[in-house]
Amino acid sequence: MSKPSTPKGMRDFLPVEMAGRNHIFNTIKSTFQLFGYQPIETPAMELLSTLIGKYGDEGDKLLYKVLNSGDFLSSAIEAKANINDSRTLSKFISEKGLKYDLTVPFARFVVEHYNNLIFPFKRYQIQPVWRADRPQKGRYREFYQCDADVIGSDSLLYEYELLELTASVFRKLGIDIIIKINNRKILSGIAEIIGYSDKFTDITIAIDKLDKTSIESVSEDLLKVGLDHKSIGFIIKILSFQETDNLKKLEFIETNISGSETGLKGISELKEVLKYCAHSGQTIPVETDMTLARGLNYYTGTIIEVKANNVEIGSICGGGRYDDLTGVFGMPGMSGVGISFGADRIYDVMKMLNLFPEQITASSVVMIVNFGDEEILQLMPFANKLRQNGISTEIYPANAKLKKQFSYASDKNIEFVIVAGKDELSSGKYGLKNMRTSEQKSMSPIEIIDFIKTKISE
Amino acid sequence: MSKPSTPKGMRDFLPVEMAGRNHIFNTIKSTFQLFGYQPIETPAMELLSTLIGKYGDEGDKLLYKVLNSGDFLSSAIEAKANINDSRTLSKFISEKGLKYDLTVPFARFVVEHYNNLIFPFKRYQIQPVWRADRPQKGRYREFYQCDADVIGSDSLLYEYELLELTASVFRKLGIDIIIKINNRKILSGIAEIIGYSDKFTDITIAIDKLDKTSIESVSEDLLKVGLDHKSIGFIIKILSFQETDNLKKLEFIETNISGSETGLKGISELKEVLKYCAHSGQTIPVETDMTLARGLNYYTGTIIEVKANNVEIGSICGGGRYDDLTGVFGMPGMSGVGISFGADRIYDVMKMLNLFPEQITASSVVMIVNFGDEEILQLMPFANKLRQNGISTEIYPANAKLKKQFSYASDKNIEFVIVAGKDELSSGKYGLKNMRTSEQKSMSPIEIIDFIKTKISE
Repeated sequence: MSKPSTPKGMRDFLPVEMAGRNHIFNTIKSTFQLFGYQPIETPAMELLSTLIGKYGDEGDKLLYKVLNSGDFLSSAIEAKANINDSRTLSKFISEKGLKYDLTVPFARFVVEHYNNLIFPFKRYQIQPVWRADRPQKGRYREFYQCDADVIGSDSLLYEYELLELTASVFRKLGIDIIIKINNRKILSGIAEIIGYSDKFTDITIAIDKLDKTSIESVSEDLLKVGLDHKSIGFIIKILSFQETDNLKKLEFIETNISGSETGLKGISELKEVLKYCAHSGQTIPVETDMTLARGLNYYTGTIIEVKANNVEIGSICGGGRYDDLTGVFGMPGMSGVGISFGADRIYDVMKMLNLFPEQITASSVVMIVNFGDEEILQLMPFANKLRQNGISTEIYPANAKLKKQFSYASDKNIEFVIVAGKDELSSGKYGLKNMRTSEQKSMSPIEIIDFIKTKISE
Repeated sequence: MSKPSTPKGMRDFLPVEMAGRNHIFNTIKSTFQLFGYQPIETPAMELLSTLIGKYGDEGDKLLYKVLNSGDFLSSAIEAKANINDSRTLSKFISEKGLKYDLTVPFARFVVEHYNNLIFPFKRYQIQPVWRADRPQKGRYREFYQCDADVIGSDSLLYEYELLELTASVFRKLGIDIIIKINNRKILSGIAEIIGYSDKFTDITIAIDKLDKTSIESVSEDLLKVGLDHKSIGFIIKILSFQETDNLKKLEFIETNISGSETGLKGISELKEVLKYCAHSGQTIPVETDMTLARGLNYYTGTIIEVKANNVEIGSICGGGRYDDLTGVFGMPGMSGVGISFGADRIYDVMKMLNLFPEQITASSVVMIVNFGDEEILQLMPFANKLRQNGISTEIYPANAKLKKQFSYASDKNIEFVIVAGKDELSSGKYGLKNMRTSEQKSMSPIEIIDFIKTKISE
């Protein structure tokens, strides 16, 4: 029999990985909560009618479709459909798909539960999503998204709040970051000024590649799309303007796009958000960046993206303002703004920069050595006492050789081992061995609890 | 456009439900950890070769199959398969399925990662599973399982440990329970004594129904299966023996099945587990119950099931010892014991008995009233101070009418509202309104933080 395995592009997580991942998830989750975002969950599956057409043709191809139950072919045969063609057939044999992101299910959720929600509705959602993408380093077919969105308000205070929240998450994780910020209205203003508003999407797609490619290559793309040389020159001038002061940079752009009302609106929104950030009382490492475009078309205002300093990796967090997320489900005019943390990349960054705290482990803190039933029966209430004091504790399951018991504790990275045989039990002083320092002390049960409690709260 | 919705039998969870569910998940998770169980996760999808044949024919029918990507029909056409037949076709067009439980993926995990695990391996896993079952009250097509298992040891201390853990979880949740316990070896001994060892599975299936049906009906089932009247009488005598003292009950059975070595082994195992429980120093509400059989065939020793007292609902937790979970994946002889908590039923029980603590909420603790940008800019650092002290805080997003701001806070069940307009800001004393008691106080920012910290830690 061949060894069983996970499907390609999908992963098991072992305890050591889980400890690191939970550290990230718990940090993100608790920060979401500190800013008043409330948890929701949606099913792994959505109806295909909810998903299809929301992610472009490429996205549709990457949806995992679930086969209908039972005699799934019957309806295709009944309808005399061409069952030799995959595309035709799939419409008959599959009506559900696995979710591709958390945004479209959230839009569906808002429309479905509109009457039970309080607006502005602030929600967070941490769940896996699935994409039938070609697996490669750092790209998986199942991965978690960690999203926070507020819907039903166009207040720029929420842009600021999400920036504050983002800075706070990475501060807690110990990751040094820069938050790039832009406003799609400014990009829209640039397109308007050069007379190519109709090519706005093409322009943003071209600009979006600047990250991975050169100014020359972007110019070529813009030429291919049909822009003239003068317009391209104008775009390049704005994109390549170097200035470290955010406000000075915005002033330069303002003078260049003063003919576009939309563009000026974008400038003023961005200024407002920056003003809030400056008053936060904390450092929010934000940098206006006109080359930031974010491919997704639903963004209409502020857009942000987070890069980790000192490490070569794509963006680890991103988001923005959208004006019409629920319109596609028949509910227009709901403005919202959201942020999404890429847990897998954050994990990689923390691993590369060695940022996981040493005490992050999924192991017990204490193991009690097993000298036989008689001793164990006396020690069981003590094990419970340790647990009641928040100290995770296990009893070695059998009266095995001491060497074997100790190597189990050491392999599992258990910090303390309690040695209490007949003599120790009758004297009331147990041996406590610190497996990291090899130090051994003799202490009463109560002293042991106090000692370990102090140790683990350090 | 029709309103979008979730697929049938699948659910969204709104913040209020999430708060209750997270209370349950967090209690279970932290207790798992206190007993030294380590988290793992496996993908939502497994290869169908891993899943099929593990849950019986009925189970196989309930598996959700995922359509292969791209031109999924090509391999069927190439193989000249009968593409008019659902059963034949599905083998060609689907190679992955959604997981049906956590046990089979765990067995696959142990075999796949054997060399990276430390045995006895104690793991917990809290993830959703999917079954294409007919939806009905309390039965869903997507639901969470919360499992803890230890594999690689046959020590009965683990049976005890899981009983202790189970009692601890329900004690923390405030649910009054009884843990029914039995041992499949005793049932096996009964079958042996009456000379029907070959009908062991049929006998356990019949006994398993006693919960929902009568002694008469079980007798009929046993007759249908081919047992004679005398044997049925013997089974009924044992099953219906009334005795509240666990050990006396076991003695009665012991004398009745003393001819079966396996049966006596079961008795002695059960006695050993009860002895451990009696020495725990805590109350473990355990009751031996010979009518407990647990249908699943892979159990070979101790079996348990938990019922909530004072409420009519099926079992809310169950588990047992299995001797050969990984054998089906080519790794025989790995003994293990596990427990699984039914989060959905536990939620229903807590709801029915009104057991959720009042302070369980997913809302902010504090809302700061918005009197306009000038005030808000001054208050933003204070909002951050509150958050740094673990107090979840939001600023109302716009300078709306006070009434509107207050009703947002009240609708969202936010406990405190901070009122700080120009006067309050210049005096340094802010208004703090308790939305539950309607009490309003005037306090300095530092006093407010101390006051709320004390309140929420109560």
